[in-house]
Amino acid sequence: MLLRQLFDKESSTYTYLVADPVSGDAALIDPVKEQFDRDLTLLRELGLTLRWVLETHVHADHVTAAGALRERTGAKTAASATGAPCVDVPLADGDTVTVGAVSIRAIATPGHTDDGMCFLANGHVFTGDTLLIRGCGRADFQNGNPSQLYHSITQVLFALPSDTIVCPAHDYKGNMRSSIGEEIAHNPRVSGKSEAEFVVIMNGLNLPKPAKIDVAVPANKACGNV
Amino acid sequence: MLLRQLFDKESSTYTYLVADPVSGDAALIDPVKEQFDRDLTLLRELGLTLRWVLETHVHADHVTAAGALRERTGAKTAASATGAPCVDVPLADGDTVTVGAVSIRAIATPGHTDDGMCFLANGHVFTGDTLLIRGCGRADFQNGNPSQLYHSITQVLFALPSDTIVCPAHDYKGNMRSSIGEEIAHNPRVSGKSEAEFVVIMNGLNLPKPAKIDVAVPANKACGNV
Repeated sequence: MLLRQLFDKESSTYTYLVADPVSGDAALIDPVKEQFDRDLTLLRELGLTLRWVLETHVHADHVTAAGALRERTGAKTAASATGAPCVDVPLADGDTVTVGAVSIRAIATPGHTDDGMCFLANGHVFTGDTLLIRGCGRADFQNGNPSQLYHSITQVLFALPSDTIVCPAHDYKGNMRSSIGEEIAHNPRVSGKSEAEFVVIMNGLNLPKPAKIDVAVPANKACGNV
Repeated sequence: MLLRQLFDKESSTYTYLVADPVSGDAALIDPVKEQFDRDLTLLRELGLTLRWVLETHVHADHVTAAGALRERTGAKTAASATGAPCVDVPLADGDTVTVGAVSIRAIATPGHTDDGMCFLANGHVFTGDTLLIRGCGRADFQNGNPSQLYHSITQVLFALPSDTIVCPAHDYKGNMRSSIGEEIAHNPRVSGKSEAEFVVIMNGLNLPKPAKIDVAVPANKACGNV
């Protein structure tokens, strides 16, 4: 599997390019609209054909490039069936999409938002905002639910092999990857914490409203085509 | 080899943690002073012992954490013998340092600055500012020399196997890694360019003076202990 992690500095978003180097088939996970040209250039230079654009959820902090990439390349878009209605292929837990010989499995992980979906490919889990490095996404908008999020992290993701590489959708401190074992041991939100303790933490965050949510959520429900 | 890439957003600097997961011995390449706590925390959580702090050159855009890390951990600092006089182990081309079973080889690559040194470990080359992703460092201060830089990139680094992973010291567009083969094919500064053409490009950049150079260079010559 060919893997490239890419960063959007303004929103601190990680986009992932996953490809089969033999067939040249590729997927982009969580591409950012402002990085459309960068990502198309990289695909072209690596000789890859974009087959899929996958979204881990309807983002509140940036607008997706999914629709623009679909129009330009003919790739299909896919995300949780409970998420953006614009996608070509609505996904349920356990569904797979393939890029050549690489299988990408969707894992339903609601809690940050109700449409949260992680993707597992070749020992890497793309965790969206469900599980961040030493953190997790907030759970106070888009039908987020701290109890659901605790379950998704501790019962679903932490059931993966401990050496599974964690590839999150964001990091704000300059960390790029982690592992399930590291997060089980060192994630301050959940390590050694009960569900009740986690809910208290999450309900006490008092975070400001995301600056772009009123623009980004409607835009992302239309795959960024606004 | 355990490898972690870390990012300092203010200076767009990549720091690399290289370690032998069996012995737990580790090296940090180009650590940033403001990220001292982050990097120490990661070392502790991963159960690693810092043995070496390596610098690719005397940086002009950020202050190193090398001296502070040496004081806290007992690690040795190493860099080109023509660079910062504060280091414990001055390196020449071909010298190696080891972290457990992992050997890290120094490759002299002057041109961005006269003390430029890349490091090769386990199929990864840490290129400092000599070779960036689809770019290269400037060559107009600290005894930089465009002709030397062209030689270092095209004759020294491009002689590595084409699947060698390129891990640069900076990126400003959100790219994190590349390969020697990609840079041979797609680096606009050198692909298909003669030395004379490269020198014209570099002499015509007209870049502003780095904002922090007057502070950073003297500080880094003292391993950041100012």
